[in-house]
Amino acid sequence: MPLSFKHLTSTKQLTREDMDAILKVALEMEKVRDSGGSDLLKDKVLASLFYEPSTRTRMSFESAMHRLGGRVVTAEGIQFSSLYKGETIEDTIAMASQYADIIVMRHPEQGSADKAASAALVPFINAGDGPGQHPTQGILDMVTIYKERGTLDGINITMVGDLKYGRTVHSLSFLLGLYNDITFTLVSPDELKMPEKVTSFYKEKGISFSETNKLEDGLQSDVLYMTRIQQERFADKSQYEKLKDSYVLQASHVKDKDITVMHPLPRVNEISTDVDALPNAAYFRQASNGVIARMALLAMLLGKA
Amino acid sequence: MPLSFKHLTSTKQLTREDMDAILKVALEMEKVRDSGGSDLLKDKVLASLFYEPSTRTRMSFESAMHRLGGRVVTAEGIQFSSLYKGETIEDTIAMASQYADIIVMRHPEQGSADKAASAALVPFINAGDGPGQHPTQGILDMVTIYKERGTLDGINITMVGDLKYGRTVHSLSFLLGLYNDITFTLVSPDELKMPEKVTSFYKEKGISFSETNKLEDGLQSDVLYMTRIQQERFADKSQYEKLKDSYVLQASHVKDKDITVMHPLPRVNEISTDVDALPNAAYFRQASNGVIARMALLAMLLGKA
Amino acid sequence: MPLSFKHLTSTKQLTREDMDAILKVALEMEKVRDSGGSDLLKDKVLASLFYEPSTRTRMSFESAMHRLGGRVVTAEGIQFSSLYKGETIEDTIAMASQYADIIVMRHPEQGSADKAASAALVPFINAGDGPGQHPTQGILDMVTIYKERGTLDGINITMVGDLKYGRTVHSLSFLLGLYNDITFTLVSPDELKMPEKVTSFYKEKGISFSETNKLEDGLQSDVLYMTRIQQERFADKSQYEKLKDSYVLQASHVKDKDITVMHPLPRVNEISTDVDALPNAAYFRQASNGVIARMALLAMLLGKA
Repeated sequence: MPLSFKHLTSTKQLTREDMDAILKVALEMEKVRDSGGSDLLKDKVLASLFYEPSTRTRMSFESAMHRLGGRVVTAEGIQFSSLYKGETIEDTIAMASQYADIIVMRHPEQGSADKAASAALVPFINAGDGPGQHPTQGILDMVTIYKERGTLDGINITMVGDLKYGRTVHSLSFLLGLYNDITFTLVSPDELKMPEKVTSFYKEKGISFSETNKLEDGLQSDVLYMTRIQQERFADKSQYEKLKDSYVLQASHVKDKDITVMHPLPRVNEISTDVDALPNAAYFRQASNGVIARMALLAMLLGKA
Repeated sequence: MPLSFKHLTSTKQLTREDMDAILKVALEMEKVRDSGGSDLLKDKVLASLFYEPSTRTRMSFESAMHRLGGRVVTAEGIQFSSLYKGETIEDTIAMASQYADIIVMRHPEQGSADKAASAALVPFINAGDGPGQHPTQGILDMVTIYKERGTLDGINITMVGDLKYGRTVHSLSFLLGLYNDITFTLVSPDELKMPEKVTSFYKEKGISFSETNKLEDGLQSDVLYMTRIQQERFADKSQYEKLKDSYVLQASHVKDKDITVMHPLPRVNEISTDVDALPNAAYFRQASNGVIARMALLAMLLGKA
Repeated sequence: MPLSFKHLTSTKQLTREDMDAILKVALEMEKVRDSGGSDLLKDKVLASLFYEPSTRTRMSFESAMHRLGGRVVTAEGIQFSSLYKGETIEDTIAMASQYADIIVMRHPEQGSADKAASAALVPFINAGDGPGQHPTQGILDMVTIYKERGTLDGINITMVGDLKYGRTVHSLSFLLGLYNDITFTLVSPDELKMPEKVTSFYKEKGISFSETNKLEDGLQSDVLYMTRIQQERFADKSQYEKLKDSYVLQASHVKDKDITVMHPLPRVNEISTDVDALPNAAYFRQASNGVIARMALLAMLLGKA
């Protein structure tokens, strides 16, 4: 199915039609994967360029490529970035376009993905550019919500934790904003409230949202999206000490409730392991959905699905 | 052929039936490899997770997977371990289970393999957990002894060097203990004698063994298993200086004798390069057997052999 | 087609017949790649051993292997070299010969490639040994010249920049020396003139060459081969400041001229980006030719082309 873009650098590029198409293909890809993969991308090479390590994102993309019969060349880490010292990102990407049929890049600098896309001679996917965008995380979250809840329209979602710096909750807000009748409950300490760029988006789109400090206020939703609170975000450490336990999800919070628990992972303490065995716990399924979402994107951007 | 275990974390899990079955499949795999590989694991992805680098073990596993038509996603080294800082091994493995059909892990901490196996949703193989276990090394040593000597029962083996800290000689002792009429000659400096946990195992199983300081006492065996002595193991450096040359194997020690020389590699000085050209020298063949032994394990744990 | 060598460590091994054969196969490989790859090396595993990182060379080789349906096991970087501390290169390569069907190695020490080749039980390719050789760069440069100019005999080439330390211009000189009626124009600061080992080769072969400080003197050739001048090569920094801009190629230098601009990449400042859009700019096509040249070498050394 055709997408409205050739390169994926930001969730803001996606139309509802794009998201619907990706979702449809991702569900087909799930069947492909679970019945033993395919040779759809047999002739294709993915360049997996990680200027900073992000092993789980990289492995998810590479696994997706392999499930479709494709090949992968990988560069990761410090050695890689030092190598290219002095070379522009544009030249690196023009070069990689000679070696590969599609490029995935993670880079620590915001804006690097746009530079890369401008030089790419083959489809390009941003796998995170510092504090900028990480669109495939948002897309896999959407696939997960659909698979867990059977719909995207009408979803009530509670987002918990670090809403200020958490790239994932911003991306997911913009993507859910493509659908109808979404309601957000935003649970965070005052220091880590959802930034104005997102709340102004809610207002502009007429999306209803409420803000609170209490986890308990957010347990009536369809989806509970947990994120990690990092101690270093607090100027006042005693404030951190006071708050940190309020945002640790326990099995008792969600047991026997019809609420789906998501988390972009890795978690540290913010979801007790006693939640893992509950049917509510969708965070490992969410990781699995990352593979099928990326299979869909790789295939679609290569014009093969 | 079915194995008695789903995850391989320790040589102690193996029954004689397991070892016999692995040996049988490994010999079949040798034919597969030497006649150009197969597509047996075409649909499968191996996650190769090396928290500490061990390039030869990693390449051996990955080559095995490729020889069977499978795919590999790799994470290695410091960047990788720092990435997961704060995440439990159990979560990492639950995550990797979403990306791959089988997981191989090396980790510097003893006990990490058991934790990983407890969380794995797909077959898991321990590729070394610090001073703990490294079962596939022991298995490939067994395959090598069989291939070189035509039998496992009745083997006389001399183990030389650092028997105290050498993980490989412990694993191999436990595996040979599954067979009949094994005799051990243990050659080491007093500082590096075989530990009681192994000698008590010999006694319990009624296996005959003798201990000596002299390499010359061990040259009448079927197999001579050399290991490296590390200077840092000695409190008294003059003791090291005195001993180190006693354990350097020369061609003259084994030439025209019916004795198979093995070594887990890498060697530094402990086998003179003039041994390499002798038919006795089995250590590079041993590395080659690592590939077929791992082909067998990957295929068997995935239910494909 | 048969080559006159089993291992490729230096451009000096190549006869004109070798170079002609590689060129012929590379052109066939271009068609193979552009029509979706092949399964020619389906059963083969490449060990890609990079003791120092060289991501672009590594990715080019690995992409070449994948385009022919082969598999790759990779080791790169500091962790890798520390791992083998104490082991000889010969042992490492004997070991890798057990895991793979062909080996590519980059190593920081001159002479390491010859040691490696002496121990290799499978075909070996030098991907750069410090200040020594990097023969596949020279070969891909030859493929590029042929593709851009339609001939190798009769080429007038200008080499610009650091001709003293630049490994690529030395290799290319030796390879062009296999052909007839070659003319070299050598443009460099006095500090970085072509070394006597190369100019004496020109003289011995009766190849005409001239030396100059001015870029403008070299713009009448068929090929303009740019290289980077590194500040650290100059004892007198004011000399560097004075010269550096003389060797920055601008679009105005080559626009509407029938001259092909090459560069081994990465570039820093020595080619203005306004050259990129000109038909003269062959440096990214040159990178692409690296893949087809390496496809040819891998296939030929494995006896498959």
